[in-house]
Amino acid sequence: MVTWKNLDTLASYQELEKAEKVNLAAVMTGENGAERVKKYSVPMAEGLVYNYAAKRVDDDVLAALAKLAEEAQLVDKYEALYNGEVINTGEKRLVLHQMTRGQLGDAVMADGVNKRDFYVGEQKKIAEFAEKVHSGEIANAAGEKFTTVVQIGIGGSDLGPRAIYLALENWAKKNDTLKMEAKFISNVDPDDAAAVLNSIDVAHSLFVLVSKSGTTLETLTNESFVKDALKNAGLDASKHMVAVTSETSPLAKSADYLAAFFMDDYIGGRFSSTSGVGGAVLSLAFGPEVFAQFLDGAAKADETAKNKDLLQNPAMLDALIGVYERNVLGHLCTAVLPYSQALSRFPAHLQQLDMESNGKSVNRFGEPINYVTGPVIFGEPGTNGQHSFYQLLHQGTDIVPLQFIGFKNNQCGSDVVIEDSTSQQKLCANVVAQIVAFACGKDDADQNKKFEGGRPSSIIVGDQLTPGSMGALLSHFENKIMFQGFAWNVNSFDQEGVQLGKVLAKRVLAHETDGALKVYSDLLNI
Amino acid sequence: MVTWKNLDTLASYQELEKAEKVNLAAVMTGENGAERVKKYSVPMAEGLVYNYAAKRVDDDVLAALAKLAEEAQLVDKYEALYNGEVINTGEKRLVLHQMTRGQLGDAVMADGVNKRDFYVGEQKKIAEFAEKVHSGEIANAAGEKFTTVVQIGIGGSDLGPRAIYLALENWAKKNDTLKMEAKFISNVDPDDAAAVLNSIDVAHSLFVLVSKSGTTLETLTNESFVKDALKNAGLDASKHMVAVTSETSPLAKSADYLAAFFMDDYIGGRFSSTSGVGGAVLSLAFGPEVFAQFLDGAAKADETAKNKDLLQNPAMLDALIGVYERNVLGHLCTAVLPYSQALSRFPAHLQQLDMESNGKSVNRFGEPINYVTGPVIFGEPGTNGQHSFYQLLHQGTDIVPLQFIGFKNNQCGSDVVIEDSTSQQKLCANVVAQIVAFACGKDDADQNKKFEGGRPSSIIVGDQLTPGSMGALLSHFENKIMFQGFAWNVNSFDQEGVQLGKVLAKRVLAHETDGALKVYSDLLNI
Repeated sequence: MVTWKNLDTLASYQELEKAEKVNLAAVMTGENGAERVKKYSVPMAEGLVYNYAAKRVDDDVLAALAKLAEEAQLVDKYEALYNGEVINTGEKRLVLHQMTRGQLGDAVMADGVNKRDFYVGEQKKIAEFAEKVHSGEIANAAGEKFTTVVQIGIGGSDLGPRAIYLALENWAKKNDTLKMEAKFISNVDPDDAAAVLNSIDVAHSLFVLVSKSGTTLETLTNESFVKDALKNAGLDASKHMVAVTSETSPLAKSADYLAAFFMDDYIGGRFSSTSGVGGAVLSLAFGPEVFAQFLDGAAKADETAKNKDLLQNPAMLDALIGVYERNVLGHLCTAVLPYSQALSRFPAHLQQLDMESNGKSVNRFGEPINYVTGPVIFGEPGTNGQHSFYQLLHQGTDIVPLQFIGFKNNQCGSDVVIEDSTSQQKLCANVVAQIVAFACGKDDADQNKKFEGGRPSSIIVGDQLTPGSMGALLSHFENKIMFQGFAWNVNSFDQEGVQLGKVLAKRVLAHETDGALKVYSDLLNI
Repeated sequence: MVTWKNLDTLASYQELEKAEKVNLAAVMTGENGAERVKKYSVPMAEGLVYNYAAKRVDDDVLAALAKLAEEAQLVDKYEALYNGEVINTGEKRLVLHQMTRGQLGDAVMADGVNKRDFYVGEQKKIAEFAEKVHSGEIANAAGEKFTTVVQIGIGGSDLGPRAIYLALENWAKKNDTLKMEAKFISNVDPDDAAAVLNSIDVAHSLFVLVSKSGTTLETLTNESFVKDALKNAGLDASKHMVAVTSETSPLAKSADYLAAFFMDDYIGGRFSSTSGVGGAVLSLAFGPEVFAQFLDGAAKADETAKNKDLLQNPAMLDALIGVYERNVLGHLCTAVLPYSQALSRFPAHLQQLDMESNGKSVNRFGEPINYVTGPVIFGEPGTNGQHSFYQLLHQGTDIVPLQFIGFKNNQCGSDVVIEDSTSQQKLCANVVAQIVAFACGKDDADQNKKFEGGRPSSIIVGDQLTPGSMGALLSHFENKIMFQGFAWNVNSFDQEGVQLGKVLAKRVLAHETDGALKVYSDLLNI
């Protein structure tokens, strides 16, 4: 049985606060630095490695973090979660996204069914549907194959699937497994749908409407936009649309769709990429086998998160170093910096995953807490970021901890040698250089050219960004954020902070406004 | 003659620190709130409006900011800048990007020429070239028109032009002025160039190579990548490429290019969107007349920044409210939240513009300073962000000031009515609702559903995102950042913080490494 306590009530947290702070520039310099890079490294799933040598930790700090992991019962709470306890206290729900990719513990029965069987069953339905689309058995009215799949969704129904699609699109092209091109419509701004519709051939497009509740305003509005476009093209919209939703939603058994695939209330939107929310669009785009490899990578990473030894559990280690940076060292932000153009939208997904999960000021019992929680997450791919905001990261007045990601090999397989090195080597050389530059700095008589150093980072290194390593990467961060939520004693699985805006927007649209709301409405001509 | 002083040495700054803090939730509630929204509003160029009612200011704070503007001589420093003083002290250069779009003060002679004439002349050359491309007078070897323009550049040669292209692409389609589709190659990751090259028809593509120095590693590497692709397609690369560079660069007079267009050392990369760096690709994509409208909007905004009355100078006002939030209220981040899908990459451009300009720890004389400077900038379009990271913005433990942007009308002109409102109305209703939700909050017996409020924001409102309003928007933020740099007494126009990484990357590629650098290099297989 686990007990839930606020971070600042834990004896191990007091101890952590007292642990001597590491002088990063000092320990990363010279042979000591070399030893650290070898030592502070832990294997992840799918051949990935989490290296935290350039974080402000040493054996003492790590020992304190290990005690914190134990006292806060982090792995026990993870076990409770995957064994089906009501971890989402606010909404009184189970939290089962890991079950979409594996059976980690006990069978979990809910709503009268075995949930693992339910998720596997839905994925099987999706796979069969995707294969029929690819074979042409399911085709358009003219009997022609669908060539494009368009996801209509927002937030968790958009950011994760989009980031993963972009991450694997070129890998799939190279490996001859790109079955359909994918596009995404998310924003209620009518220019979003209009631009996507202008860029595709609707007669050969299949639309995947994703809304768990079946009531998401943006998504229903964009569905209507798309239906108009299909009708204007003389097409039967119901033959061009599938729904991914919950079994109780208005979309579930509608004749408006070719098919409906189901998720449930135990999969939060931002954790839904491995459910049908990601499954439908990605299986259609890449084929179900590729999606299965992706799930397999995620499942393997979920397994590594079960390890009670902090130093062998990369997600928990990453989580607690983050807590240390946030609560003890006092840093507000974390920058996610993938040295991989394919991961261009992965930081945006992590921004949601992290900030929506842990941007909370009350604990899981609804009581105010006295310490800071989730960080602000932002990021762009390297080397682009180096020519953009790294100036502030190197020489600004505040320290921003950094999460680098790098791969030894590119995806497309084409490269060019300039000045005796390939582009891939230049890419990798840059990420290595940045870690050391941030950590060690450089003295200079000219203060303007001086680098203080002491700026912490970690790096996740892989052989190549593939479906498997993408799955492992996604799961790593999902689990990291879960462990941080446990440490902060917040409920990482609700999002009450999004409600007030929705209520006020409805009031504006109904012209039921007064005070500032009315004058702003006039200003925007509503 | 202006004098340059550190912020914390100004009497007006001490006064500002003492001004009573505004209780935002209180002043924004009820009729007082309505009055604020009407009052705290200032017109910008091109019909835009800057409304700062939801910032933590009142007449007293604004009076203190006005004194600060005067004591820090902000407008005098702007005058000195556009009249040709050496404002970029680190690199001992003039700062003349405003001159690419207008003559604000005295004629400025440098390098033996009138600089305004020089910039106008280059833009004229670009316009003539673009018209020849559009007419087919300049065509490919088969005599066919070029249909695609591909910018090869990174940082300032990428983010601004890309953001502006995306901002105006759908407007141009709707107004029948999209002459060529534009693509962008930036990252040294070989998968970036490979993906773009896979997506275009190189035989009908014109490449714009952008590097002021002509030595940017990423850009030269990508040039080589593109040349290989052209050669492999049996094409003469020199007939498919133009250069935008400085007159002294190795690219300037090369037979490798169809044409070369010039900028100079007085235009910083991140401020170069209105020079040939943005001019070539945008004139080719949209036509020179559209680019001229964009320049005109920027020039008008530059004029409004000359006003010594703080309350009539939106860029200076925005700047000083930001300084107040950063130095007195203690907020690290600012989120840029455009309610316009077309501005999807504008936050990424502002991230560079702001963080690279003002992420500094020494003043313009190279002396360490004792106060915080430039903020961390991040953002995504609304309503997407509402379903992503807004949870933390509403209920997180730290306050993040917000910059909203909204337009009354969309660009594409197609819309749909659902539940008695258009998508455009929903979009606008949401931004209005968010401002009030953040400012006023909402009490609730359930602490998990409680919103503290007191979270400051401002909004820029326009009729429509057009070339003119885009120019005004860009110039507003350039000038805001310039004024903030003046207030902080930093040099906003150099970027020494990017140098160390470059030096270390070269060492890695030459295998001249030891210590941590060597072990990391092994880890990445370099």
